[in-house]
Amino acid sequence: MDTQTLVERYWQLANARDWAGYGALLSPEVVYDMPQTRERLTGREHYLEFNRTYPGQWRAELLQVIAQEDRAVSVVAMHLNGSVETGITFFEFTNGLITRLTDHWPAPYVPPPRMTAAIEFY
Amino acid sequence: MDTQTLVERYWQLANARDWAGYGALLSPEVVYDMPQTRERLTGREHYLEFNRTYPGQWRAELLQVIAQEDRAVSVVAMHLNGSVETGITFFEFTNGLITRLTDHWPAPYVPPPRMTAAIEFY
Repeated sequence: MDTQTLVERYWQLANARDWAGYGALLSPEVVYDMPQTRERLTGREHYLEFNRTYPGQWRAELLQVIAQEDRAVSVVAMHLNGSVETGITFFEFTNGLITRLTDHWPAPYVPPPRMTAAIEFY
Repeated sequence: MDTQTLVERYWQLANARDWAGYGALLSPEVVYDMPQTRERLTGREHYLEFNRTYPGQWRAELLQVIAQEDRAVSVVAMHLNGSVETGITFFEFTNGLITRLTDHWPAPYVPPPRMTAAIEFY
């Protein structure tokens, strides 16, 4: 399986709550980091527990994947309890297994004053 | 120039304030989006003006690039007026020029309560 396909399967299996299939994509020593909160999970069992017990209704809509042989990034629209958040996940692979995930959740913010008048809002 | 090299040059030229060289990487119709604020700049001249007039001291430290033939993503540590912010930029290319940039600035936040005790802080 190439890394693009691995990332697609990762999200399909998460949405299906197929934790056996999902866990089979993970290295036993996988590390999951959230740099914005500096939270970390180490090891497949801990990471599976985190996902299995994540509260509320959620479904990841995969918007984009950029993949190289040993690394990839995905962008998802995470539908969570009726709202939508953007998730950006970086993946590292070794021998076809995910060894590291780094997850970013960029939230809306009020823009600062800008020096240019050319800004539009969409 | 491959897309990995284009992204590296993009940040080198930005740090050097070499706006002629930087502009030469951009399509005249480039679109720059910041989804968190829904701000948009359209066209090379507007985007150059935005960058040329960006206030304060800033330097982008390039941490990672993932590149395919027509798309790439970079992660930078943006050193801005003595602090550091993470910037995640998605690039789209047509005929070797940047046609679209989508920029995310995921900021620190207080984590919600978690259902698992396995979380560590790093």
